Amino acid sequence: MKHHEIIIDLLGSDLGPEEMLKGASLVLEEFPLVNLALAGPRALIEAAGLPEGRYRILEADKTVTNLDNPVEAFYRKESVSVFVALEEASRNEDVIGVINAGNTGALFVGAIRYLLADKAVRPCIAAILPTTQGGFTCLVDTGASIDCGPAQLVEFAHLGSDFMHTLYKLDSPRVGLLSNGAEPTKGNNLVKEAHQLLAREEGINFIGNIEGNKTLSGLCDVLVCEGFAGNQVLKNSEGMAVNLITEIVKYGKMHNQPAAQEIAGYLMSRFDFASLGAGIMLGTRKLVVKSRGSCRREAIRNAARIIINLAENKTLYESIH
Amino acid sequence: MKHHEIIIDLLGSDLGPEEMLKGASLVLEEFPLVNLALAGPRALIEAAGLPEGRYRILEADKTVTNLDNPVEAFYRKESVSVFVALEEASRNEDVIGVINAGNTGALFVGAIRYLLADKAVRPCIAAILPTTQGGFTCLVDTGASIDCGPAQLVEFAHLGSDFMHTLYKLDSPRVGLLSNGAEPTKGNNLVKEAHQLLAREEGINFIGNIEGNKTLSGLCDVLVCEGFAGNQVLKNSEGMAVNLITEIVKYGKMHNQPAAQEIAGYLMSRFDFASLGAGIMLGTRKLVVKSRGSCRREAIRNAARIIINLAENKTLYESIH
Repeated sequence: MKHHEIIIDLLGSDLGPEEMLKGASLVLEEFPLVNLALAGPRALIEAAGLPEGRYRILEADKTVTNLDNPVEAFYRKESVSVFVALEEASRNEDVIGVINAGNTGALFVGAIRYLLADKAVRPCIAAILPTTQGGFTCLVDTGASIDCGPAQLVEFAHLGSDFMHTLYKLDSPRVGLLSNGAEPTKGNNLVKEAHQLLAREEGINFIGNIEGNKTLSGLCDVLVCEGFAGNQVLKNSEGMAVNLITEIVKYGKMHNQPAAQEIAGYLMSRFDFASLGAGIMLGTRKLVVKSRGSCRREAIRNAARIIINLAENKTLYESIH
Repeated sequence: MKHHEIIIDLLGSDLGPEEMLKGASLVLEEFPLVNLALAGPRALIEAAGLPEGRYRILEADKTVTNLDNPVEAFYRKESVSVFVALEEASRNEDVIGVINAGNTGALFVGAIRYLLADKAVRPCIAAILPTTQGGFTCLVDTGASIDCGPAQLVEFAHLGSDFMHTLYKLDSPRVGLLSNGAEPTKGNNLVKEAHQLLAREEGINFIGNIEGNKTLSGLCDVLVCEGFAGNQVLKNSEGMAVNLITEIVKYGKMHNQPAAQEIAGYLMSRFDFASLGAGIMLGTRKLVVKSRGSCRREAIRNAARIIINLAENKTLYESIH
């Protein structure tokens, strides 16, 4: 492995920079050939006791909250960690990727400003979800582009197809469109228009509409949807997995059934959205991984695994298991 | 129990009128004081061998498919079973409800034409979902009103609140708004506008935005959303429950773990969307229950239970368990 550097934006997560620094420490332990650039307050970083020579500091002491307007924040604030991180990623060749657990809108604005792969194509955030067939489906977009138009859904189809082609060596990834019915006539106006566009788009293996109860059935390799709907699918899938697993554990305790714990553990390994569900930005020149705001240190390590393995051209499966 | 009549629309379901007639037979067996009016082809109904004197025939031999435009179908076709059923419900006092498993759009168009409770308020289709707290949340709308405006979401809030007040004697049902973040600034344009309207709406106990991973956590009694998003939540929840239960059964077989079957059975009883998920139309003068197109005979019996218990002012919990 050649020398790599990953930037971690320490600010903006729910558990605070201390937890992000614990995550940074796990990354340095697991990957002796990877160094880190940490965007955040100098004093805090220096106090964390990370191994000398393995990290550098990108000074920044401000963050964008969920109550800020991300575009205004970009122009008004200086020393904002997410923008400092992305700008550094854009100009430093050693940087292979950026990890962020803060405001999605700010990450999106910064990525457009500094890291666009193609100026005509806006980036989006994909999630790689486990299917019941044992494979993976790339859900795109999961919340970066709310209220987008039909042409953007076609862009998501291309970005998702390219990604799944790179990641799993799929020749012609099957692209499905999330809708409220399988027939081409079903959908809101956006989906109906996108259906027509996708059906005649070259370079896309469009297989038609996919209903909400089939999102994880492995019918398609790329599932295209607008960000609001995609966010519902992602979070609802995660929430239902947590709900059922919690019920199993409760049942096991109530009925003194030790197998319940074993089964709950198995399901967690199969449907562990906390690690699998890290958002991966598509359409950028560098890898950008969006961890959940509530993420713990292990999620930061997982994000680093994803970046390193993608950079080394391994599959995401290898990067997680 | 006083004399009741329920109309069953036999046409338009995936398994065909024969399965609907089997469902009709189950209803007649379970409810000796309920009679049926069956909308469908006379010959087929007469050949079904249902007990004499317990049913009458509403002749109709056409249906609206998913490829038809429901409004055009309403004006062009005659003898369409769903419209025959709804018209009869509107003028016959003995009829307490209608069961349908066909095209949602056609049901919606017919309900607006014949059964509106208030001409200014369009109906919607709610689902009663089980929460992890042991209670129920009314999800509204689940797919009848795609691409609606913010004022309609406020109507859903009222319809859902009234329904949960009637059903569970809740004094002031807590209303949540489905969004991609908990903060009032999160959402697509529709949700942001609806948030402002709901916050100042009288007679609504608005508790704010609910994220997709919290839909079944019992945080609210009524969860308001536009039909496309609601359809995703409903179907995704159902799909995830099926996925995890299937995994448990597979795991049990593979590891020779008999407890797995028991746990799967328990989860099915807790999260059985096939019966719980029947759509209930709100905003109509008569009860209209929309069963899934793929429903089996038992789902028709469940739909009748819901109608009878609602008509008798019992809770839905009693009607299902």
